[in-house]
Amino acid sequence: MVLAAIAARIGARHVHGPDAVEPRYLDDESGGAAGRPAGVVRPGDTAEVAFVLATCHAAGQPVVVQGGRTGMTRAALPRDGELILSLERIATVEAVDAVAGVMTVGAGCVLATAQAAAAEAGWWLAVDIGARGSCTIGGMIATNAGGHQVLRHGMMRDQLLGLEAVLADGTVVSAMNRLLKNNSGYDLKQLFVGAEGTLGVVTRAVLRLRPPAIRRETALCALDDYAGAVALLGRLDRALPGQLGAFELMWDEFLSAASALPGGSRPFAVQPPLAALVEIEGQADGALAAALEACLADGVIADAVIAQSERDHQRLWTVRDAIGPLVEAMPLVEPFDVSVALQAIGPLVDQLRRALSAELPGSRPLFFGHIADGNLHLALALADEAQRAAAERIVYEAVGAMDGSISAEHGIGMLKRAWLGLSRSATEIALMRQLRGALDPKGILNPGRIFTGQPGAA
Amino acid sequence: MVLAAIAARIGARHVHGPDAVEPRYLDDESGGAAGRPAGVVRPGDTAEVAFVLATCHAAGQPVVVQGGRTGMTRAALPRDGELILSLERIATVEAVDAVAGVMTVGAGCVLATAQAAAAEAGWWLAVDIGARGSCTIGGMIATNAGGHQVLRHGMMRDQLLGLEAVLADGTVVSAMNRLLKNNSGYDLKQLFVGAEGTLGVVTRAVLRLRPPAIRRETALCALDDYAGAVALLGRLDRALPGQLGAFELMWDEFLSAASALPGGSRPFAVQPPLAALVEIEGQADGALAAALEACLADGVIADAVIAQSERDHQRLWTVRDAIGPLVEAMPLVEPFDVSVALQAIGPLVDQLRRALSAELPGSRPLFFGHIADGNLHLALALADEAQRAAAERIVYEAVGAMDGSISAEHGIGMLKRAWLGLSRSATEIALMRQLRGALDPKGILNPGRIFTGQPGAA
Repeated sequence: MVLAAIAARIGARHVHGPDAVEPRYLDDESGGAAGRPAGVVRPGDTAEVAFVLATCHAAGQPVVVQGGRTGMTRAALPRDGELILSLERIATVEAVDAVAGVMTVGAGCVLATAQAAAAEAGWWLAVDIGARGSCTIGGMIATNAGGHQVLRHGMMRDQLLGLEAVLADGTVVSAMNRLLKNNSGYDLKQLFVGAEGTLGVVTRAVLRLRPPAIRRETALCALDDYAGAVALLGRLDRALPGQLGAFELMWDEFLSAASALPGGSRPFAVQPPLAALVEIEGQADGALAAALEACLADGVIADAVIAQSERDHQRLWTVRDAIGPLVEAMPLVEPFDVSVALQAIGPLVDQLRRALSAELPGSRPLFFGHIADGNLHLALALADEAQRAAAERIVYEAVGAMDGSISAEHGIGMLKRAWLGLSRSATEIALMRQLRGALDPKGILNPGRIFTGQPGAA
Repeated sequence: MVLAAIAARIGARHVHGPDAVEPRYLDDESGGAAGRPAGVVRPGDTAEVAFVLATCHAAGQPVVVQGGRTGMTRAALPRDGELILSLERIATVEAVDAVAGVMTVGAGCVLATAQAAAAEAGWWLAVDIGARGSCTIGGMIATNAGGHQVLRHGMMRDQLLGLEAVLADGTVVSAMNRLLKNNSGYDLKQLFVGAEGTLGVVTRAVLRLRPPAIRRETALCALDDYAGAVALLGRLDRALPGQLGAFELMWDEFLSAASALPGGSRPFAVQPPLAALVEIEGQADGALAAALEACLADGVIADAVIAQSERDHQRLWTVRDAIGPLVEAMPLVEPFDVSVALQAIGPLVDQLRRALSAELPGSRPLFFGHIADGNLHLALALADEAQRAAAERIVYEAVGAMDGSISAEHGIGMLKRAWLGLSRSATEIALMRQLRGALDPKGILNPGRIFTGQPGAA
C-alpha cells in the first residue's frame, strides 16, 4: 500500500520492494548486518520526500534515512521492516555565490563534489573526512561530522547557514538562511544537526565557504610525555593564534606499529614515547620553525623534524595516515572515538592501557587523537569477538567517570545507545526524548537510533 | 500566594511585591515603558529558580526573565502582571580551567567580570559588546550576542560549551558540557541560545576561552564605492586568512557627522564616499600594510591611513566610535540592526537612502556596519515620533525583499515581533511555536516576546 502510493507519486523506477533492494543499501562502515527492509524509495526533491514521509506517517511505517552509508554507528543500516529513504537523487550543487562565499546543495550531494564546486569558485569547504568520496552533505549534517579541519573551522555545524528539512509527518520546514548573523527567532537548523535523522530529514543545505588555505608549515615533534604535548599545544596556540590547523598526537604503540609497516617511516633515530604532527596555515614562512626552535630551547619538545618540501610534508603525514593500513591488518577491531578534557587525555590513556592489558589478554591498543579538540581515538585490536563487550565497558566507563563523551565525532546510532547515559545526564536524555516525541510522535524516523526503548526499537 | 510560597523558599528579602519593585527592574535600553509587574524574585541558585518556575507554572503566573537589562528589543521589560525573575544573585565565576581554557559562570555574571577572570588566568573571552559593564552571560546566551569580535570568533553561541537551564515547569536540564567535541545525542544547549528566555531560563554556563590576541594592526581605508569595499574585504580575507579582526564600513553621512563632532577627526584631506576601518590580529608586523599597499597599487582603495602607534590606533577607532555621541545627540532615534548578503548591502543602503529621504522628510540616516558579517546598522534620527512606524516598514520590507534578517544581533523581543514573518518562513515560525508549546505549554516564560498572539501576549 505504502510502496504503491509512493510509486504513483515519485515514479515506479524509484521504488523497490523488499525483494528488489540492491545490496549497497544494506551495508555501512560499521560492520553490522542489515535486517530485511520493507523496500527502498528514492524521492527526487523535497516535495517528494514530504509525500513519502506523510504516507509513512499515516501508515505508521518506520523509515531509515540514507545518505552515503559511511557512518560508523549503524544509524543508517536498515532493520527488519524499515523503509529505506535514500537521498541519493537530491544531489545537485544548486549554486555557489562566489562573492559572499555561500553554497547551496542538495542533501545527497557527495562531499567531494561539493568540495570541487567550492574550489572551482575560488573557495574552500572547510570540512574534510576520509569518506569524502561517498559521504553526503545531509549525512554530515545529521551526524555533525568532524574530521581533519575542526581545529580552525569547526565541525559541520559551523559550516551550516541554513537548511530545508521534512518532519516525520511530511511538514516541510524551509530555513534556507544564507546570512552569517540572523537573530530573528530560534535558530531551527541547530535541531537537525547531530540528531542522526531522528527529528527530521534534511533535504537541502546552505553552507558557508572559507578562503582557501594558503601557506602551510608542517612538523613532527618528539615529546617525552603527555604534559609536554599539552605544553607544546599551549605554546603554539599563543605564538600563532588561530593558525594551528592540525595537532595530531600519537602514542608509542602507534609509532612502533607505524614504523614496522612495510615502507613505514622512522622519523627519529630513537623513537620517542609520543610524537605530535603539527601544522599551521596562513602564516609567513618560518613562523612554525621559529616557534619550535623556542620550544626546543626551553625543553618543551625533545626534537622536531620540519618539512622543507611538499615531499617532506607527505612523508610526515605518512606516519599519521598509517592508521589506515594498521586497522586493515587487524582481524578484529573496535574503533573508539571519545573526548575528555585536554589534561585528562594522558591519564585516560595510561588507565586504559593498564585495564585493557589486565582484562583483555591478547588485545592491542593504538592510541592517537586530535588532542587540541579533546578527542582521543583508540583502535583496539581484539583477540576474539568475546572481548568486544568488555572493551566497550572498560573504555566508556572510564570516559564517563571523567565527564567525557562516548562519541566525539561519530554519533550514537545503534552501536552506542546503551552507553548514552554515561555522557548525558538523565535530564538531558529526558529532554531529548521530549523533543523527539514532539516532532515525531509515532517514532517513525530512524527508530532505535540514539535512544533505547523507542517505539520500534529492536 | 505565589510570592509567599517563593519567599518561604528563597527568603523574604529576595522577594518584593508589586509596590516594592525597585525602579531599576523597570528599565532597559529600548526606551520603552514597563507595565506594573506582579513583583520581583531573586533566587540564589538553580534549585531556587526551579522552585520559582514550578510555583509559577502551577499557578499560571507569567514570568519575565532579567539579566542586565541592556537589551534593545524589550524582551526583559516587565509587562502588567508579570513576575520579574532576576538572575542577579547567580553571578559567581565558579571556575576557570587555565589548562583547557574553559570557564564556568553563573548566568547573572556580568560580562566584564567574566572577561577579567579569563584575563587573569591568561585567556580571553572572545565576545565583547558596549554593554560589557552591565550585560550578563545569561542574557548574552538568551540573545546570542554579537559585538566587536564576531569576525574571528563568532557570536555567543560559538563561545558556549554547556549550560544548565530550568524549563517552564521547573524541570532542571543539566548540560554542563566542557568538551569541544561531543556528538552523543542532541546538542540541547543550542535550543536556549537566542530563544530570548521563551524556552527556559539559563542559570549556569560553560564557556570556551581563546588565547589572548597578540600583535594588532589597524588602518582606515578610503573607498570610492561599495564595490570597492567588497573587493577590499575579499583581498584581505585571502591575503591574511583568518586574521581579519574588524572590518567596519562607514558611509558618507556617518563620516561627515563624525568629523563635525567637537574634537571629531578628519583622517583624509578629502572625505571619501566610504571608509573602512580594518584590523588584523596575530600576524607579524607589516602584513596589513603590505596587503594594503598592493590594494592601493591595484586601485582597490583610494587611500589608507595605517596606525603607527597605540595612539594612532585609538585615533582611528574614534571615527567609528563617534556613533555613541552621535546617537546621544539625536532627540528621536530608531536603531536598526539588519543583515543581508554581502553584495546586497550597498544596494540596500542606496535604496533606503532614497526611500527615507522621499517618505520621511527631516529624518537623517547614519549607515555603518560589520559588513564582513553581512550586518548593516542604521541609526535613523527621526523628525517626529510619527515617523517611527513608517521607518520600520520601509527598512524591514526592503530587508525582507532581499531575503535578509530584521535582526542580525539584537533579537526580536516585543519590538520587532510584528515583522518576524519578513525574515522567517511560515513553516519556520510554525515549528518555533511548536517547540515553544512543547516546552512551555502554558506560555508563562517571557510571553509575547518573539511571537505575537501568544498566551498572555499584549
